[in-house]
Amino acid sequence: MMRTRPLKVALLGCGVVGSEVARIMTTHADDLAARIGAPVELAGVAVRRPDRVREGIDPALVTTDATALVKRGDIDVVVEVIGGIEPARTLITTAMEHGASVVSANKALLAQDGPALHAVAAGQGRDLYYEAAVAGAIPLIRPLRESLAGDKVNRVLGIVNGTTNFILDAMDSTGAGYQEALDEATALGYAEADPTADVEGFDAAAKAAILAGIAFHTRVRLDDVHREGMTEVTAADFASAKEMGCTIKLLAICERAADGASVTARVHPAMIPLSHPLANVRGAYNAVFVEAEAAGQLMFYGPGAGGAPTASAVLGDLVAVCRNRLGGGRGPGESAYAALPVSPMGEVVTRYHISLDVADKPGVLAQVATVFAEHGVSIDTVRQSGKDGEASLVVVTHRASDAALGGTVEALRKLDTVRGVASIMRVEGE
Amino acid sequence: MMRTRPLKVALLGCGVVGSEVARIMTTHADDLAARIGAPVELAGVAVRRPDRVREGIDPALVTTDATALVKRGDIDVVVEVIGGIEPARTLITTAMEHGASVVSANKALLAQDGPALHAVAAGQGRDLYYEAAVAGAIPLIRPLRESLAGDKVNRVLGIVNGTTNFILDAMDSTGAGYQEALDEATALGYAEADPTADVEGFDAAAKAAILAGIAFHTRVRLDDVHREGMTEVTAADFASAKEMGCTIKLLAICERAADGASVTARVHPAMIPLSHPLANVRGAYNAVFVEAEAAGQLMFYGPGAGGAPTASAVLGDLVAVCRNRLGGGRGPGESAYAALPVSPMGEVVTRYHISLDVADKPGVLAQVATVFAEHGVSIDTVRQSGKDGEASLVVVTHRASDAALGGTVEALRKLDTVRGVASIMRVEGE
Ligand SMILES: NC(=O)c1ccc[n+]([C@@H]2O[C@H](COP(=O)([O-])OP(=O)(O)OC[C@H]3O[C@@H](n4cnc5c(N)ncnc54)[C@H](OP(=O)(O)O)[C@@H]3O)[C@@H](O)[C@H]2O)c1
Ligand SMILES: NC(=O)c1ccc[n+]([C@@H]2O[C@H](COP(=O)([O-])OP(=O)(O)OC[C@H]3O[C@@H](n4cnc5c(N)ncnc54)[C@H](OP(=O)(O)O)[C@@H]3O)[C@@H](O)[C@H]2O)c1
Repeated sequence: MMRTRPLKVALLGCGVVGSEVARIMTTHADDLAARIGAPVELAGVAVRRPDRVREGIDPALVTTDATALVKRGDIDVVVEVIGGIEPARTLITTAMEHGASVVSANKALLAQDGPALHAVAAGQGRDLYYEAAVAGAIPLIRPLRESLAGDKVNRVLGIVNGTTNFILDAMDSTGAGYQEALDEATALGYAEADPTADVEGFDAAAKAAILAGIAFHTRVRLDDVHREGMTEVTAADFASAKEMGCTIKLLAICERAADGASVTARVHPAMIPLSHPLANVRGAYNAVFVEAEAAGQLMFYGPGAGGAPTASAVLGDLVAVCRNRLGGGRGPGESAYAALPVSPMGEVVTRYHISLDVADKPGVLAQVATVFAEHGVSIDTVRQSGKDGEASLVVVTHRASDAALGGTVEALRKLDTVRGVASIMRVEGE
Repeated sequence: MMRTRPLKVALLGCGVVGSEVARIMTTHADDLAARIGAPVELAGVAVRRPDRVREGIDPALVTTDATALVKRGDIDVVVEVIGGIEPARTLITTAMEHGASVVSANKALLAQDGPALHAVAAGQGRDLYYEAAVAGAIPLIRPLRESLAGDKVNRVLGIVNGTTNFILDAMDSTGAGYQEALDEATALGYAEADPTADVEGFDAAAKAAILAGIAFHTRVRLDDVHREGMTEVTAADFASAKEMGCTIKLLAICERAADGASVTARVHPAMIPLSHPLANVRGAYNAVFVEAEAAGQLMFYGPGAGGAPTASAVLGDLVAVCRNRLGGGRGPGESAYAALPVSPMGEVVTRYHISLDVADKPGVLAQVATVFAEHGVSIDTVRQSGKDGEASLVVVTHRASDAALGGTVEALRKLDTVRGVASIMRVEGE
């Protein structure tokens, strides 16, 4: 069964993820060989700083010339764990043009250039795998692409960013404000020095684009994903959520419209009921809920980042790609045949929790209710409370479009009796 | 891309699962064709009772001669959803010998004869897929076999039987006894008229054997799986569990020993902390926790049975197998290279919750504690309570081997002051 000529792997990048990939390839070489049917050999490691000490890696393998490495022609698989758009994109393309299959963990690149890279892979008859790009160690791309290949996915609802989940979980459990929780996350290494990509939802939006594309067999561009960060979530929002039996999570939501003819993808903070399995996802963990027509509700849970977990996903792809090379097959490529239109945010239908500061006088509720009715937004519950001459109204709506809600809020702001719109939050997972 | 000659599928069995497979193949034919790259055609349906009305199925396709169907020679894929050992085993074997790849949902057969069937598949160069055999719609076999192929799985801990989870959940939430909860499950269609296979743990044991085999790259026979049913779990056990902040689940547990040199597989009721994600798995849902060296803790959750969910898993396999036929590759076959010894139950190490009825006189606790110490079982906590001259002792141990615990209990029973051992339950998931 076992052939002796090893499969040659080039590692591009040897940082948090790459160093773990190299470590596992070395320490578990026998297991990998048995599972693949041939030994795998680390044939080269491209980095930026060649003189850094890299434990367990033969210095003779280290190079700063990644381009020469991927052009060598004898490389079977290139593992790209550099990150970012360039030089990763050119290196991956060049690698495939020179006969290699590619495993990548690069969500930013896949979300931006997935179709182009898939086209190169298809043209060259090579594999392009990227399980690690979404939700780290959690098997998600493969289940969506393969296990659910005979089903119709209607919704993907997930916590796909560990940094923001850590922050929101801390706010929920300690009552801390956003800045305080962010500082704690930074101190503990859960947030980067510049947390923008995480807290503004860019990272989650890239993952949403990738997930929506696979789930709906439709190309979803990064620009198609509506994105709101979580920097404006307040302790008061958590208090309101608790009163409703909810918590707040930053969610990536990919949905097929009720009529099946279009899809949407969005990232924003939202209230979800404590009874929802996603509500109990703590700390930096990730979890993704998938609703499919035949399968029903599935959930996938685990560590969404970190060197070793991400390397686990990379290695799973590496084994698959190596098996394909030996067996002569190819894994599933891009599937975008459905080509459904991606609707703008205005067409998203969901529920809303709106807090208004209002004048404490009779008739205000009637005025407010009229505005909702005029915009076709039906009210589920209203709670009035007055304190110190100020009054507040908390309105929870039935399902309505984002456009209708937007019109409602605009009209509410114009009412003399409405002093301000304290917060608007979507309610999901019901 | 699309070839026009359809791939021919023979369906063996058209009951709860088979009828849903046929329905989805018909209603979603265009999607399946696009995802596979060729249309799939239902070429024949084997059943026992040919005259039954089968909605949506061309009567001309129906036959009672399953053997002739699988021998036709033009069948690309045989889907076996008859169940049981024979004739399913012979039909699957014959099908592969006549050139077909096979998709099956048959846990009983795979647990008993997996290695032999895999050998036929390998010999014939065909695929044998069975995602639906374990935990219904939940992608589990594929993630274990493929996504975690580069990792080292150390433990699989799962709720893999919906009937027993429904019963235990009802006992937990209503305080009902076993019989009452079983009756409710039967009335609601969650338990079969003869629930033996479920409540005695046979069904879960078959799944444990399959999961352990894949997780540890080792053949695990049904006989290797220690099996205890859940018919003796009482309302009093749930009360004890609650006092410990636990609930009770019927778990399938596959573990690698601490030294990595052997594995165990077992099915039994156990207490797990309410904080463990498996504790919140309600009703007939299934969930499986996987611990791997690099990935960390993963969980997979969803409907473990039912016609449509199980058909979703079958269809996912069907698409994969069809893609392999078109692409010329083969999916992963059996991986049993590790060939680790499967240790007997006596070597399993875990914690225990033991309730004793004891005489209400001084010195009893000292006597009992001495017996534990003599058998090398270290006590974590003891709770004494006396009511009406009777007294009870609840002992929770640290981790100890099943053999040591067995010896302890035997010696306890011989003490004059111990009137009886009211219950022994393992404590898992900590
Ligand atoms: N970290 C995670 O938890 C995680 C989780 C999921 C996905 N990912 C993805 O995995 C990828 C890698 O992340 P990471 O955290 O491992 O990043 P990292 O720690 O910053 O490592 C990046 C590596 O790439 C090398 N590199 C940078 N520019 C290069 C160039 N031009 N040519 C050759 N090598 C170059 C660096 O070399 P030096 O060592 O010389 O600096 C370093 O070894 C990213 O796409 C990321 O999004 C990461
Ligand atoms: N039901 C679930 O929720 C579920 C979940 C996971 C896995 N599974 C597995 O899926 C398989 C099928 O289960 P199921 O619930 O669909 O069973 P089922 O409803 O009892 O259906 C069995 C089918 O097989 C046919 N059949 C029986 N003996 C046959 C024979 N000798 N030749 C040809 N056809 C024969 C029956 O024909 P008639 O229609 O003429 O009686 C019936 O169509 C089993 O292996 C089961 O363990 C089921």
